[in-house]
Amino acid sequence: MDGGMNAADPALRDALRIAAHAAADAAAPETLARFRCGVAVDDKGGTDARPGFDPVTEGDRAAEAAMRSALAGLRPQDAILGEEEGRSPGTSGLEWVLDPIDGTRGFIAGTPVWGTLVAVCPEGGRPCYGIVDQPWTGERFAGGWGEAALRRQGVERSLRTRKVRALSEATVLTTFPEVGTKAEGAAFARVAERCRLTRYGLDCYAYALVACGTADLVIEAGLARYDIAAPMALVEAAGGIVTAWDGGPAQHGGRVVAAGCRAVHDAVLELLAGAGGPG
Amino acid sequence: MDGGMNAADPALRDALRIAAHAAADAAAPETLARFRCGVAVDDKGGTDARPGFDPVTEGDRAAEAAMRSALAGLRPQDAILGEEEGRSPGTSGLEWVLDPIDGTRGFIAGTPVWGTLVAVCPEGGRPCYGIVDQPWTGERFAGGWGEAALRRQGVERSLRTRKVRALSEATVLTTFPEVGTKAEGAAFARVAERCRLTRYGLDCYAYALVACGTADLVIEAGLARYDIAAPMALVEAAGGIVTAWDGGPAQHGGRVVAAGCRAVHDAVLELLAGAGGPG
Repeated sequence: MDGGMNAADPALRDALRIAAHAAADAAAPETLARFRCGVAVDDKGGTDARPGFDPVTEGDRAAEAAMRSALAGLRPQDAILGEEEGRSPGTSGLEWVLDPIDGTRGFIAGTPVWGTLVAVCPEGGRPCYGIVDQPWTGERFAGGWGEAALRRQGVERSLRTRKVRALSEATVLTTFPEVGTKAEGAAFARVAERCRLTRYGLDCYAYALVACGTADLVIEAGLARYDIAAPMALVEAAGGIVTAWDGGPAQHGGRVVAAGCRAVHDAVLELLAGAGGPG
Repeated sequence: MDGGMNAADPALRDALRIAAHAAADAAAPETLARFRCGVAVDDKGGTDARPGFDPVTEGDRAAEAAMRSALAGLRPQDAILGEEEGRSPGTSGLEWVLDPIDGTRGFIAGTPVWGTLVAVCPEGGRPCYGIVDQPWTGERFAGGWGEAALRRQGVERSLRTRKVRALSEATVLTTFPEVGTKAEGAAFARVAERCRLTRYGLDCYAYALVACGTADLVIEAGLARYDIAAPMALVEAAGGIVTAWDGGPAQHGGRVVAAGCRAVHDAVLELLAGAGGPG
């Protein structure tokens, strides 16, 4: 089992899709029960890329435990990497990558743009299927193997990224205005000043909007594997392009650019060059 | 009819509440039909406070027309001020202040944090009742005369702002990282660096989160009357404090600070002083 997952047999794909949705289903009651309820907030201390406040809620921990339990039942041989509990090894060559609440800051502030992320990849490889679930708005964005869809209120519609002719027509999204280091922030600013519209504060929801074709670009830095695996699978399945800022693979995290079309992706890589070594 | 509206008779209050909800109900199908549907975007040209791109969608215009039509039927003697069509005079001494889509940029990008704003005020006075309606998430935040509530999926719960002991425990929200002029941005940064958490990109939804008690502060500059009337009524009814940065009245727009409690409001006014003359 390796990069050849894209050619995996339909029965395995179905089993993985079913397990991914079961994991997202298991997380939702845990996150929703704690949303806007005055949850306790711990401070994990932060990292170099995102110094300062790094909140972890009971919701993160409970939702990851619920997802692990769902996957253990359906896919006991697969490895699992989760934000809260780290990595449990497997024997199948497949790995699940979980972020119970991506956008914990947004969750704590009560915004509806956090999400539960579920992805499955060949170990060490590109994610082949991913879910960005927003249970408060009832939106489940899912994509892999060349197909992406949004399910809401029992209705499913397929998603395609949009094409724009030039960066000057593009809407660019990111989470923090400072983006990452000073050099990374300056590189982002070079892009943003050429775009038509910039919006902040969206975490994983930004990638879902590129998949929906209502925005064209997400640019972030300092990401972990569990931040990008599911959004990457979703955007690629909807027709977009997701790479590191230098054009290399994005699934390891770090500096990531997700574009809805090739013209925008090409223009952006040029502007992001010169942000210094890996952030 | 003047500032004494706070002591208005119950029948009038009921009539105003009913008309406000009717206006929000009328706007919702117009905005929703155009959300994430590739709507045409015009460029109004921008203002000094928000230079550059100022999108207006067909949704803005259609929603305001629908609200005006609903109000004309129920409250024909009242004046109406709307973002799109300007002011129509009235004879009752009451004025409706409407923003069909607050957060048009967020609307265009597909985010779920734009809103339809409906407020009623004595002409020239403080808003006495306001609605922040987010029809995509199904959330209707409404408040006035000392009571605020969120209605969603047929369930209504009352809203109260929260109290924190110090600014260091506060979550601060704003729409644009630059906030307004350079001096205004610097003043905002003085506050943000003392807060626990800062989130961007929320427009009117930020005020709704202060009313909900999941965030503590909104600081903005360059607002119009129709941007602040409804959020102000909502936050005040939930127990919060809404003023200009200099502590003066906020209903005229400009530089606005909304706080969930007195301790935070006091600390913030001090830090915002010295941002120069009115922006």
